[in-house]
Amino acid sequence: MASQMKQWVLAKRPVGLATVEDFHLVEVPIPNIEEGQALVKTLYLGVAPVMLRYMNNETEFERPLHIGDVMHGRGVGRVVESKCDAFKVGDIVQSKLRWREYAVIQDEPYYLTHTMHNTDLNLSYGVGALGMNGFTAVLGMRDICAVQPGDTVLVSGAAGSVGSMVGFIAKTLGAKTVIGIAGGEKKCRLLTEQLGYDAALDYKSPGLYEKIDKYLPEGIDVFFDNVGGELLDEVLGRINRRARIAICGRISEYLIPPEQYHRPRNLYRIGLKDAKMEGFFIYDYAKNHHEYEHQMAQWIREGKVKPYEDISVGIEHMPHALISLYQGTNGGTRMVRVDPSAH
Amino acid sequence: MASQMKQWVLAKRPVGLATVEDFHLVEVPIPNIEEGQALVKTLYLGVAPVMLRYMNNETEFERPLHIGDVMHGRGVGRVVESKCDAFKVGDIVQSKLRWREYAVIQDEPYYLTHTMHNTDLNLSYGVGALGMNGFTAVLGMRDICAVQPGDTVLVSGAAGSVGSMVGFIAKTLGAKTVIGIAGGEKKCRLLTEQLGYDAALDYKSPGLYEKIDKYLPEGIDVFFDNVGGELLDEVLGRINRRARIAICGRISEYLIPPEQYHRPRNLYRIGLKDAKMEGFFIYDYAKNHHEYEHQMAQWIREGKVKPYEDISVGIEHMPHALISLYQGTNGGTRMVRVDPSAH
Repeated sequence: MASQMKQWVLAKRPVGLATVEDFHLVEVPIPNIEEGQALVKTLYLGVAPVMLRYMNNETEFERPLHIGDVMHGRGVGRVVESKCDAFKVGDIVQSKLRWREYAVIQDEPYYLTHTMHNTDLNLSYGVGALGMNGFTAVLGMRDICAVQPGDTVLVSGAAGSVGSMVGFIAKTLGAKTVIGIAGGEKKCRLLTEQLGYDAALDYKSPGLYEKIDKYLPEGIDVFFDNVGGELLDEVLGRINRRARIAICGRISEYLIPPEQYHRPRNLYRIGLKDAKMEGFFIYDYAKNHHEYEHQMAQWIREGKVKPYEDISVGIEHMPHALISLYQGTNGGTRMVRVDPSAH
Repeated sequence: MASQMKQWVLAKRPVGLATVEDFHLVEVPIPNIEEGQALVKTLYLGVAPVMLRYMNNETEFERPLHIGDVMHGRGVGRVVESKCDAFKVGDIVQSKLRWREYAVIQDEPYYLTHTMHNTDLNLSYGVGALGMNGFTAVLGMRDICAVQPGDTVLVSGAAGSVGSMVGFIAKTLGAKTVIGIAGGEKKCRLLTEQLGYDAALDYKSPGLYEKIDKYLPEGIDVFFDNVGGELLDEVLGRINRRARIAICGRISEYLIPPEQYHRPRNLYRIGLKDAKMEGFFIYDYAKNHHEYEHQMAQWIREGKVKPYEDISVGIEHMPHALISLYQGTNGGTRMVRVDPSAH
């Protein structure tokens, strides 16, 4: 085994969106493990929009990130050495490995580090469908929206990692119509050709709300929202009795101050229509993560969910993979295969 | 048995709020029953704000009400004659009896007509605590708000029939602080002296939101809302992580057109705080009504819920009882003992 490994550290705080100059690739010795620890070789690392907030040390749910620290990040790895009863050599684990080729783990709560149980499937799924984004999709669409046969379903941010799975889940649960909203022709094609959506609406072209009326003339039973703001208000204006709205993200509001937020006309319709609106955060449901993994693995085996992945190969591509998220050109779950031999 | 009975019919549509001139008391023969029917002697009839909407034929969830029709209304009665297997003479039932001294019932779904199971308790509870308002209180506070030990709870419309019970339920479930909002000193005294609230805030005196800050300095975990509009917005500005808001009513919006509704600043906090807001209608939960009755009866026996009733005696007081609701002078569950000998 090599004695040195590569890792990415934060070189400086980003100005606006992240650039490659904000990161620094360094070589360091592979760490030694102590009693109670295990050494993991990184196979896959995911990237996510929230990482820009880590880089700015806006890390409400993460440890502070200082200049020179290894970048935060979750991934999938293989145990290569163990002095810990919880892990044996060869185990596949999901953990907050950070942007490095090897990491030290220990026996921790499930949501921090756990052995994957469905390793007959692609190990890369541990970053998306069988990881936190997949769990978010199951929790949001199956449990919070509780899709019933015959429901009409609308999804915003439908080409993102979570959005790329919730359409499949809605269909699997019997939804009659599942419509996705995304930006640009390429992503919209992805929705209908690869991600199981009945139709895709491009928010970058005019007349979005008229298109919602056209594709969902009977109103909206379920809205899975990643956008917030005016779109959410317009959807409230179109909900049916006992509609369910899951607030997964609010990207329209992340870069403006609260006093500029849209003030909705239609909030009263939650009461009028006996509807539900609910925000959620996957780490609050840690006790269910194990079940979410098995549910998603079952759907993948049955061909009901088809994970869509966008994979670069080699740890040197980590900054580029992250930056591509903000450029919004691709869809699905963006990740890097850190170990080129991983399946 | 007498052969004649009294009943109240709608004399004309109200102009603004209801007046005694809108009703007419008539005497008619007590009806004969056919095979499959039972005759019920009315013991108690409830009144509710929604009845003004019945009088104006705005009856989305009720049969149309024409001039000359007997007024809609739910109540408690005793079976005095039966040609129906579902009911035997002496049974106590809850049903949509309407404003009359005798009514004909038949075997119907539980939420329309059912035999009461806790008749060792006051039969008048069938109008409030063991009727639809009590069921609404259990569903809203126990199930939708899912109060946890240590929660801070705010209730608007706290002196109303439902509000007079939800404070007790919140305390029973372990809430740390339960604050009620009502209009006027008399109702506020009722909240703290009779209805189990830790404090009462009078919305008719200035500085309501500052008072909320004073009494709930750690923020709001649960809001049981009967008001909507600006108050709901201000509460959203003060919710804690994973707060739960039950939308029971929206009285601030019932008498103004939608374009005048308050446009909230703080809806985004549902997503920010991973909170939930949910409207609900008790008839959508008919399959649980039986369990709600038993839960409430248990709490009453344990002294945890103390139903507060405001009872007039004699069917001739029905219009006055209804009108008193709009004058807002009393609190608790307003009803009429139609049979003066009922316990």
